[in-house]
Amino acid sequence: MSKANNGRNSSIPRGYHPEDTKARKEWVKKYANIDLDDNLRDESVDLKGIIENHVGFLNLPMAVVGPLLLDGKYAQGEFCVPICTVEGTLAMSMNRGMYATRASGGIRVRHVRQEISRAPFFTFPDIDKATRFNSWIDDHLGEIRDVAESTTNHGKLLRIEIYNISKYVVLDFIFSTANAAGQNMVTIATKAACEYIKNETSFHYLLDSNFASDKKASAKTILKGRGHYVIAETVLTSQVLKRILNTAAKDFRAMQEFGPYASSFAGNQGIQLHISNALTAIYLATGQDVACVAENSLGYTQIKGFNDGTDLHVSLTTPSLTVGTVGGGTRLKQQRQNLEMLGCTQGKDSSKKFAEIICASSLCLEISLLSAIISGDWESAHAKYGRR
Amino acid sequence: MSKANNGRNSSIPRGYHPEDTKARKEWVKKYANIDLDDNLRDESVDLKGIIENHVGFLNLPMAVVGPLLLDGKYAQGEFCVPICTVEGTLAMSMNRGMYATRASGGIRVRHVRQEISRAPFFTFPDIDKATRFNSWIDDHLGEIRDVAESTTNHGKLLRIEIYNISKYVVLDFIFSTANAAGQNMVTIATKAACEYIKNETSFHYLLDSNFASDKKASAKTILKGRGHYVIAETVLTSQVLKRILNTAAKDFRAMQEFGPYASSFAGNQGIQLHISNALTAIYLATGQDVACVAENSLGYTQIKGFNDGTDLHVSLTTPSLTVGTVGGGTRLKQQRQNLEMLGCTQGKDSSKKFAEIICASSLCLEISLLSAIISGDWESAHAKYGRR
Amino acid sequence: MSKANNGRNSSIPRGYHPEDTKARKEWVKKYANIDLDDNLRDESVDLKGIIENHVGFLNLPMAVVGPLLLDGKYAQGEFCVPICTVEGTLAMSMNRGMYATRASGGIRVRHVRQEISRAPFFTFPDIDKATRFNSWIDDHLGEIRDVAESTTNHGKLLRIEIYNISKYVVLDFIFSTANAAGQNMVTIATKAACEYIKNETSFHYLLDSNFASDKKASAKTILKGRGHYVIAETVLTSQVLKRILNTAAKDFRAMQEFGPYASSFAGNQGIQLHISNALTAIYLATGQDVACVAENSLGYTQIKGFNDGTDLHVSLTTPSLTVGTVGGGTRLKQQRQNLEMLGCTQGKDSSKKFAEIICASSLCLEISLLSAIISGDWESAHAKYGRR
Amino acid sequence: MSKANNGRNSSIPRGYHPEDTKARKEWVKKYANIDLDDNLRDESVDLKGIIENHVGFLNLPMAVVGPLLLDGKYAQGEFCVPICTVEGTLAMSMNRGMYATRASGGIRVRHVRQEISRAPFFTFPDIDKATRFNSWIDDHLGEIRDVAESTTNHGKLLRIEIYNISKYVVLDFIFSTANAAGQNMVTIATKAACEYIKNETSFHYLLDSNFASDKKASAKTILKGRGHYVIAETVLTSQVLKRILNTAAKDFRAMQEFGPYASSFAGNQGIQLHISNALTAIYLATGQDVACVAENSLGYTQIKGFNDGTDLHVSLTTPSLTVGTVGGGTRLKQQRQNLEMLGCTQGKDSSKKFAEIICASSLCLEISLLSAIISGDWESAHAKYGRR
Repeated sequence: MSKANNGRNSSIPRGYHPEDTKARKEWVKKYANIDLDDNLRDESVDLKGIIENHVGFLNLPMAVVGPLLLDGKYAQGEFCVPICTVEGTLAMSMNRGMYATRASGGIRVRHVRQEISRAPFFTFPDIDKATRFNSWIDDHLGEIRDVAESTTNHGKLLRIEIYNISKYVVLDFIFSTANAAGQNMVTIATKAACEYIKNETSFHYLLDSNFASDKKASAKTILKGRGHYVIAETVLTSQVLKRILNTAAKDFRAMQEFGPYASSFAGNQGIQLHISNALTAIYLATGQDVACVAENSLGYTQIKGFNDGTDLHVSLTTPSLTVGTVGGGTRLKQQRQNLEMLGCTQGKDSSKKFAEIICASSLCLEISLLSAIISGDWESAHAKYGRR
Repeated sequence: MSKANNGRNSSIPRGYHPEDTKARKEWVKKYANIDLDDNLRDESVDLKGIIENHVGFLNLPMAVVGPLLLDGKYAQGEFCVPICTVEGTLAMSMNRGMYATRASGGIRVRHVRQEISRAPFFTFPDIDKATRFNSWIDDHLGEIRDVAESTTNHGKLLRIEIYNISKYVVLDFIFSTANAAGQNMVTIATKAACEYIKNETSFHYLLDSNFASDKKASAKTILKGRGHYVIAETVLTSQVLKRILNTAAKDFRAMQEFGPYASSFAGNQGIQLHISNALTAIYLATGQDVACVAENSLGYTQIKGFNDGTDLHVSLTTPSLTVGTVGGGTRLKQQRQNLEMLGCTQGKDSSKKFAEIICASSLCLEISLLSAIISGDWESAHAKYGRR
Repeated sequence: MSKANNGRNSSIPRGYHPEDTKARKEWVKKYANIDLDDNLRDESVDLKGIIENHVGFLNLPMAVVGPLLLDGKYAQGEFCVPICTVEGTLAMSMNRGMYATRASGGIRVRHVRQEISRAPFFTFPDIDKATRFNSWIDDHLGEIRDVAESTTNHGKLLRIEIYNISKYVVLDFIFSTANAAGQNMVTIATKAACEYIKNETSFHYLLDSNFASDKKASAKTILKGRGHYVIAETVLTSQVLKRILNTAAKDFRAMQEFGPYASSFAGNQGIQLHISNALTAIYLATGQDVACVAENSLGYTQIKGFNDGTDLHVSLTTPSLTVGTVGGGTRLKQQRQNLEMLGCTQGKDSSKKFAEIICASSLCLEISLLSAIISGDWESAHAKYGRR
Repeated sequence: MSKANNGRNSSIPRGYHPEDTKARKEWVKKYANIDLDDNLRDESVDLKGIIENHVGFLNLPMAVVGPLLLDGKYAQGEFCVPICTVEGTLAMSMNRGMYATRASGGIRVRHVRQEISRAPFFTFPDIDKATRFNSWIDDHLGEIRDVAESTTNHGKLLRIEIYNISKYVVLDFIFSTANAAGQNMVTIATKAACEYIKNETSFHYLLDSNFASDKKASAKTILKGRGHYVIAETVLTSQVLKRILNTAAKDFRAMQEFGPYASSFAGNQGIQLHISNALTAIYLATGQDVACVAENSLGYTQIKGFNDGTDLHVSLTTPSLTVGTVGGGTRLKQQRQNLEMLGCTQGKDSSKKFAEIICASSLCLEISLLSAIISGDWESAHAKYGRR
């Protein structure tokens, strides 16, 4: 991580030749003080908790994009962002968005909250017993919390939300999980709490019913959030729009006026173009659980004229980023190195800082793609960079 | 790929030690006749069309699971499936599902169709001109098809569906794309078609409005499909349920009765547990665009009693698998090797065969997770294998 | 209302002749002690607050169905339910459901809660000011509540839920509204609260943004509830299924197994057949705002085998019934008479009792229609009663 | 109906006194040549096919609003629209919207298509047989159509859409139903077709699975339409905005920019404020099945600056209006009289004309409510007219 640009060249060298790659590694060294080493490999014995039946390692192409200039609650300054992808144009496009937002003064980003839940359901003989259960839970919240939190050093049970559906009761156990993404943490804590409840009440439960919506898009996740809830915004100046993005603020009008309706008409969850691309690329490089992209691709990308319509305000609201900076794949050597590059390996708020970087990076990709669609560059860029 | 088990040991060796990894590689050699080589690396000049700004390769843990026994329209016999993940228990769980379905006689799987679209929108001065445009399109379909198909060797324009929303008209260009996932193909073809229409009618367009729902979950994708539409089913016998899955058919009743309602109540798109895990793991190993997991995690997992309730019928319907066996990341050496392991590098239907393998593998993971939730093993497995 | 059947004939006389109508009125007199008088008309000066530009009254066909036997938290005993409709078979079908559930021992019904909201949004210059606003609201909740509640005798502000989306903040003001449906009450109270906030902070607002989802179906309303949240259940015995509903428990299996998936696949909000029919019919007869049917038709109808599968448990969960027993159309003479017939004009919980009757009546219609689909009577009933 | 304003006073007299009501009836006589007679009552024997168990008639307050000036494909000229409601301010608000659009030159409205479906599902032993069934249907489409159409004089089977879900197959039978709303017509025709298929193939079916989404909101209905699909638009001039609606085009900006996102975030089906109010009011007055409001309240209301932002383009797209001008409640005397007032009782396209009037009237109510929210009049109007 780098807090200010101390006379360094802020443009990442381009090109597909070995010397270009070498030049970029040197750039990363200067910029982020990291010696990128892709020969780092974890020992097989260290893969416990990561993978079973392993037969080796897949070599996944890795790139860096940036610098990304942020004014965040947790993430401040310039960042060089590591990504992995096999989609041609993605790195270039994200890089362009970072360049454009930096030239416009950077991105303001705010972490709003972090919560994650597990939602077991209890089964009752009838709705009378089921609805009486609600008050039992309310009355025993203290004991339940003690049991749940006894299983974890960092997780905190924030509250239990109760949903009565027929003669079933869903208990949505909502936790904060510190720097961990926390899915395993809340599973273990919720299991302990449910065993306690079962022992006290004799009612049976199953630990999941799909109500927690993990690993899939859902209306609940939009409304309630899941993981980190973050908002990012920037104002693209008319010069940046013209010089870097090949557009003008007024050209976005048709998209602004019609886009949200097209999204709703198609029944899209959320209104955004392809933040899944940015999430996937960063998650891969940093040891996140990439399958969570299915539940995290729910943002709201909003565009509006600014300063009498010559500039463009663009923002991205992501209600669900289930990421962490400890545990799981973040233990792997290269993935950890990449988190270090972002300055996200230390401190009690490192996962919040990381979430801010992810949201802002996703906004950059949205900006670049939106501009490409509007200027007509989209297809030509893919025709040029998306094929051999 | 292997069409029958010729006296080979069908159990993949276990363990986290280097010699265990070696034993598994030997097993793969015997089983699929592939020498897994994770030192294969592509040259930087060969990464054009794959990634820009590359700085090296990320070492992503890779495993094999199987054998997966299939009776498909395209996929027949036993398969050893390569996966990448950083989520502990995933490989073991998918392997267990494959073992259970194989012991039950395998999985029947049927490819239903393959279609993918791009959905530009045209803007009109008023709804009169907008609604008249519909018949213009109908009248010029032949010319539009010629222009669109002139840009591609393999893509075919199947039809154009027309949506009138206010004074905008969305044209959903629906293509078949042979063995390619086809997103770039349809972008380029649709752009050409739109330029033709614009020149003929003088009406303006933008090439996307989010209506095609690419890279995000949507109701449209469920209803219309996107990419490969595949269905898989199996009947788990009471013995398999007991011995391998630690459950019984009747234990699934509460989940069967309540699960779909919980999914709907939470506003989940689709009704399935975590096929995103299976999709991500296979997509990574085979060079697919993993960001598509966001739009592909939409299946329907259904369970019902069978043979008077002692056995269990489980099926998975996946309306959207946007995968291919040519182009993009499938060009990379290791990824190609993994496709070879599945016998999916040759023939005009290789992507359909691949889609059948993916759907069936996802069903295996669903079966194992469902069983784990129901037997109570879920949390303990994660407590054991999901942490160091 | 009638708490027990004191030797009265519990079957409503049938037929389309004037003497049949007369016989039914006499039945109502005996059963509910109400002289149904359809010559009651309100004076035009009394229509203020009900309708403007009035030119007379529409004669809408009215019927009674019942007796409906309930074991509710608020509704106890037998009820004769007034309805209005122009859909042939509806009255007969609802009546059949009431007959079947009464023969099975009646319907258990539980009112869970009552809450209704108005959701204005405030606009900010940037996300920094927007996210800081959250704590301002938390810090001034007491004052805001005082202002809001100063506008109403019965409404109570339960809490404010805060949603940050880009640089906008939605405040969801959640009220309990006693026996009123409460839409006007919360509009007026929320307006006062927003004016206070605007004066204190200088930030601008609009009083609605569609976020409250009134008068339309929404995922938020399912998850959060809107108006009365009620659950009803019954167990249909094998004899009732056979004699009254022309089916057997096992015949429901295909519907139970597939129905929820079909609903989800089509992107239905909720999983139920046609509770809108029951809601509309009762709302009309009792002076409710019938347009609310759009937001209230969101229930979950669930069926499952019971007692080793010979009986059938059927339940209905309705998260949103925005009804009241005071104000609006309930002031009109006939409508008030009909509420009296249900014993819902007095007491602090009359709207809760009313909501229980509505949910249970809707369950009756669901049961009858489900049975008709399964037995094959559905089409023949409509062919016979749905046409002249 | 009236095609031009021949020197008549276009303002409906106001007031709550008997003489005001009388004046309005005279206005209707002059304007639409209809003697409104609210003593018209149908004979009980004529209620067969409309209602069972009838005990009389409910007196529902009725009003007229207008004139509504239309340039439609089927509806041309000025209309006086009959409505029923018990929601104070509704008539006044709709009237204001009609006044404003008329002063702006009227509303352009276009009927796009009319289709309605019934969706039975067939059950199969396995997915092999299920997927083979698709081609059987394609091969026998002619015979199936003959059987289906043999049950109806006016219905035409347009096509069958096939959905494979697990080992079930949904057949969506899509009909045009001429001037009937057509729900009974398609039920009877589909039943006949399914019996034929069952006899030929021995596979079992149920006539509904909720897939047709009748009487509930659904994503399928938005995407596919259900009933009449209509679009209406108008351009409000700056003078009209100022004088009649107490606003200016620029004041709508916050609503335009944020509203669609708020709707999506809440998981609303569609993006509109309260077209259910307009639909309910007109449906009641004209003998429609009001329960269909649940499935028809799905429009898209769009606002955008026009003529350099001084004027305002407002449009409404309604993909589902399941209304008719024959059958059901349209047989009742007063209801028929009201359809006559709209000129919708004759001609092969009367239901299309009627649908255009409904869509345009709904747009008027949307315009008035939007303006009221934006100007701050909304709450004060309800405080004044929504209470006694």
